Amino acid sequence: MTRIAFLGPRATFTEQALRSMPEAAGAEFVPCAGSPAVLAAVRDGSADLGCVPIENSVEGAVPAVLDGLVADPPLVIVREAVLAVRFALLVRPGTRLDDVRTVASHPHGIAQTREWIAARLPAADVLLSASTSEAAAQVARGEFDAAVSAPLAAEQHGLDILADDIADNAGAITRFALVAPPGPPPAATGHDRTSLAATTQNRPGALLGLLTELAVRGIDLTRIESRPIKDRHAEYWFHLDCTGHVSEPAMGEALAALHRRCDRVRFLGSYPRAGNGVSTAAPSTSPLPIGGADAAQFAAAQKWLESVRAGGVA
Amino acid sequence: MTRIAFLGPRATFTEQALRSMPEAAGAEFVPCAGSPAVLAAVRDGSADLGCVPIENSVEGAVPAVLDGLVADPPLVIVREAVLAVRFALLVRPGTRLDDVRTVASHPHGIAQTREWIAARLPAADVLLSASTSEAAAQVARGEFDAAVSAPLAAEQHGLDILADDIADNAGAITRFALVAPPGPPPAATGHDRTSLAATTQNRPGALLGLLTELAVRGIDLTRIESRPIKDRHAEYWFHLDCTGHVSEPAMGEALAALHRRCDRVRFLGSYPRAGNGVSTAAPSTSPLPIGGADAAQFAAAQKWLESVRAGGVA
Amino acid sequence: MTRIAFLGPRATFTEQALRSMPEAAGAEFVPCAGSPAVLAAVRDGSADLGCVPIENSVEGAVPAVLDGLVADPPLVIVREAVLAVRFALLVRPGTRLDDVRTVASHPHGIAQTREWIAARLPAADVLLSASTSEAAAQVARGEFDAAVSAPLAAEQHGLDILADDIADNAGAITRFALVAPPGPPPAATGHDRTSLAATTQNRPGALLGLLTELAVRGIDLTRIESRPIKDRHAEYWFHLDCTGHVSEPAMGEALAALHRRCDRVRFLGSYPRAGNGVSTAAPSTSPLPIGGADAAQFAAAQKWLESVRAGGVA
Amino acid sequence: MTRIAFLGPRATFTEQALRSMPEAAGAEFVPCAGSPAVLAAVRDGSADLGCVPIENSVEGAVPAVLDGLVADPPLVIVREAVLAVRFALLVRPGTRLDDVRTVASHPHGIAQTREWIAARLPAADVLLSASTSEAAAQVARGEFDAAVSAPLAAEQHGLDILADDIADNAGAITRFALVAPPGPPPAATGHDRTSLAATTQNRPGALLGLLTELAVRGIDLTRIESRPIKDRHAEYWFHLDCTGHVSEPAMGEALAALHRRCDRVRFLGSYPRAGNGVSTAAPSTSPLPIGGADAAQFAAAQKWLESVRAGGVA
Repeated sequence: MTRIAFLGPRATFTEQALRSMPEAAGAEFVPCAGSPAVLAAVRDGSADLGCVPIENSVEGAVPAVLDGLVADPPLVIVREAVLAVRFALLVRPGTRLDDVRTVASHPHGIAQTREWIAARLPAADVLLSASTSEAAAQVARGEFDAAVSAPLAAEQHGLDILADDIADNAGAITRFALVAPPGPPPAATGHDRTSLAATTQNRPGALLGLLTELAVRGIDLTRIESRPIKDRHAEYWFHLDCTGHVSEPAMGEALAALHRRCDRVRFLGSYPRAGNGVSTAAPSTSPLPIGGADAAQFAAAQKWLESVRAGGVA
Repeated sequence: MTRIAFLGPRATFTEQALRSMPEAAGAEFVPCAGSPAVLAAVRDGSADLGCVPIENSVEGAVPAVLDGLVADPPLVIVREAVLAVRFALLVRPGTRLDDVRTVASHPHGIAQTREWIAARLPAADVLLSASTSEAAAQVARGEFDAAVSAPLAAEQHGLDILADDIADNAGAITRFALVAPPGPPPAATGHDRTSLAATTQNRPGALLGLLTELAVRGIDLTRIESRPIKDRHAEYWFHLDCTGHVSEPAMGEALAALHRRCDRVRFLGSYPRAGNGVSTAAPSTSPLPIGGADAAQFAAAQKWLESVRAGGVA
Repeated sequence: MTRIAFLGPRATFTEQALRSMPEAAGAEFVPCAGSPAVLAAVRDGSADLGCVPIENSVEGAVPAVLDGLVADPPLVIVREAVLAVRFALLVRPGTRLDDVRTVASHPHGIAQTREWIAARLPAADVLLSASTSEAAAQVARGEFDAAVSAPLAAEQHGLDILADDIADNAGAITRFALVAPPGPPPAATGHDRTSLAATTQNRPGALLGLLTELAVRGIDLTRIESRPIKDRHAEYWFHLDCTGHVSEPAMGEALAALHRRCDRVRFLGSYPRAGNGVSTAAPSTSPLPIGGADAAQFAAAQKWLESVRAGGVA
Repeated sequence: MTRIAFLGPRATFTEQALRSMPEAAGAEFVPCAGSPAVLAAVRDGSADLGCVPIENSVEGAVPAVLDGLVADPPLVIVREAVLAVRFALLVRPGTRLDDVRTVASHPHGIAQTREWIAARLPAADVLLSASTSEAAAQVARGEFDAAVSAPLAAEQHGLDILADDIADNAGAITRFALVAPPGPPPAATGHDRTSLAATTQNRPGALLGLLTELAVRGIDLTRIESRPIKDRHAEYWFHLDCTGHVSEPAMGEALAALHRRCDRVRFLGSYPRAGNGVSTAAPSTSPLPIGGADAAQFAAAQKWLESVRAGGVA
């Protein structure tokens, strides 16, 4: 049976995202304390796959996951899922809003419902818990009056949803990644994303050169993050998400070009794009009109080149 | 007397950073609960200046600060400070390592000392507090046995430093910003940084075009972050740190160019670079050799242009 | 009275182009033997203006003119004219096509009517003359039977037009420039061209950097030619024609940028574009969408920059 | 026996250049009237190879040759030769400088010795001939007193060299191309040139995009010329000379990229660079440092890509 590690505890958004993935069907779920532990479980073989949050529209990228993905031995992303972040106020059955004197949640949960709490529970004490799920457990045990949690936690802990959709930014979403040891990537669907990380020499032009390699080949960039390299002063890993699949010629040529240009480049996976991802239509770097960079155009150009090299008619 | 709001409570790294700044001399310190509260205090005039963490070499950028800086009304950065993140294990006098059954800290403190705790306190329960300083207070009150805090908190709470420099990444540093309402920027020192944020139309070439405006004018980019714009689907603020000062012609011309090109551009301040910042020598975007973009070269070129326009000899 | 030197002899295309220019009204015409002589006459003051061909759609740029324009002392172009190159077969009255045994013209005239002559005068001997006008004079003197000339020469030499529009490429056109000593350029019309020449250091990136300076400022390039620099091995003058006028801020900023970047840059004039020039809609180098580089946008950006520098609200 | 057409008549610079090429050994030489006739002879099979001037350091590119190379059916350059243009004054034996009343040459010969003639033969009449060799023949026949010709013509026509090296620009050189029907290109020597021509859509960014395809792959550009396309208004063929050989991976990938990007692209040959060519060290377009674009680096990158696609460890 497939074992899938995930950022625990149970009944958090990560489990909810994992349940939406086909790989979850029939799998054993292994909650881990922290994203680094999830990646470690996949690396040491105690889990076959791992599910971690990678980017939140309010909180930004998850640094521990970005840093963990470029550590050794290699891991790759094989699927992504996007989840609307939906916070609810959970209480023990019978509790009314007027009864709530204490409200608890993970710091992120508190941060994303700050305005709602200030408006509706102005007199309540706000307390921090280790996770949104743990806050629900604490409410169930009677330690606090209310928890800001995923609705999923209500059922698990026998709580009621006193108020739903209480996030200050209604549209907040989180992107989750399913990671695996290296292996053949999922087949191209025509609607894929490729993640990679690269370091460049710390000199003028390095980043612009890197982006130009993508742009001339018509590769769209949907996300860019820089992360300092832990053991090297003032050097960075650039994390890039691009549209396309490693099996496509444009992406293959671009990856090979980065391999030549960059000090280090890590392929972090090609996988189907989630329908309405954080970055689906995000800023692009292709400034240079290219008259058709699809596989057919690449094949035609390659065929022409081979003809020219053989002395045929151009 | 100058009132300076800062990310509280007292005795955290932010206060330590603030104390290193010239503006702190003789000022009244106003601890605030959260970076958004610091920015709000400066905006509503209840404080003259505000000090917040903006970037940590382990945790990355601080999203709430980036998002807060581009909100209205405008704020600008007038100084930066870089602080080595130094964690210590604080205990009540007399406590030995063997006595420690519980250790508390802010989630970031726990995250950055995870390995040390696992090695030296493998049996201890780890608990989360609202801040590293609050953890020290809790230890002082006898609620927990040890706190992972800034050494500064020991003195404040009457605790002993049982172990110092316990961070897993010895070189971790945090960059702090002192923000103010708009006003004439600090004078150029020849060793300055300019922060800005810009949004671009969500179409191919936008990011590359933006970076090229900097590159052709010899402006070095030391940091780039993208932050989703809260109320607009799949659009981003790009936060850029550059070397140079708004009073210099190269930077001025580049800013004006971004003003023409970008949907929105926010000048976030020109201020002296801290000596050994996170990003001091970070990746640059200037691919195009420019034979001298200093003020004298700009002045010479402008003089030549005026001569040409007047019909003089080129 | 204005004296205008032009590439002689009389009754060539250059005189025809000159007559189409407003400056020709009431001026004294001074035919010169060769374009270098025209430029020399303007430089030494023996003429006020000079008219030379600069580019032909069949023959390409006129190297002697390009090289002459970057010599010292400086000259600038103040007007251009475009002339459809129309060749006719001129004969003495009474001569029929069957009578033509010899046909003469300037080498360019022969080159551009080669196919017509081969088809219609297959048995005729083809002879070269110093100019198309001289060929007509030779026919008038009875030395040859027919001349390939501008129709204008028929009247001057008392010849008949036996066949008109005999050029192999019906659409061939020539662009002519009216040059003057440096002086205030003609006022901008909103439909102008600016000519310039620049040399760059002989190293990678030089040309791309130069073109990028134009592109980021939305300047369209309508022609590019490289000319070896006579006294420096393997170095080149790049001759560029751009859309826009030196008085416009985008062009001014681009020229100043070239002045900083290039070893040498020569402003060669801003002048009204001829309606249907050789290069009116020619290839452009602006890859980077710019949301409005007109004077109003530049003024708005400059005003914003000054506000920011003064500490105002961005 | 190999038949080689060349720009005649005999004893011109073109024959001299052809004699310097290995292919000339034992070949039959076929003088043609005009470069178009040379190309036509190769196209129709009446010659196996053709030798034409392609670029002169004083006169610039030879438009008829550039235009002829992109006509159909295709031709490719298989060798280049560079010749110092050396003009001599040829006379019948016994003629002294004082005796010279008339001097004849091809217009280019006159243009390149204008200053010498003005200084040394100020009173002589200058006459134009169809070629420098024909001028020598005319002198031999007694029609004129002196000819400006290649020294080679003296021996052929039984003339004396009265003055040698009389060109105004001592360093003038001409580049000649040996063209052939398509066939496998000459083997790479490590010191090769590749010629190509491309048309682009007539829209902003087209030329910059084209140059960027070369630059990102580390291809140096040694010459660029634009030629109007005869039958399409305001569209251009760009003629490019680059360093490298079509068999090399960087050049191959760049050519394939141009094939995808450009409306039309014509491979015009890869061949050994002549030692001290017009453009040997000419301006380059590679702005983007590339850490090793040699064949070994390309092979390593390709191998890595294949490993990644197969699911191996990156």
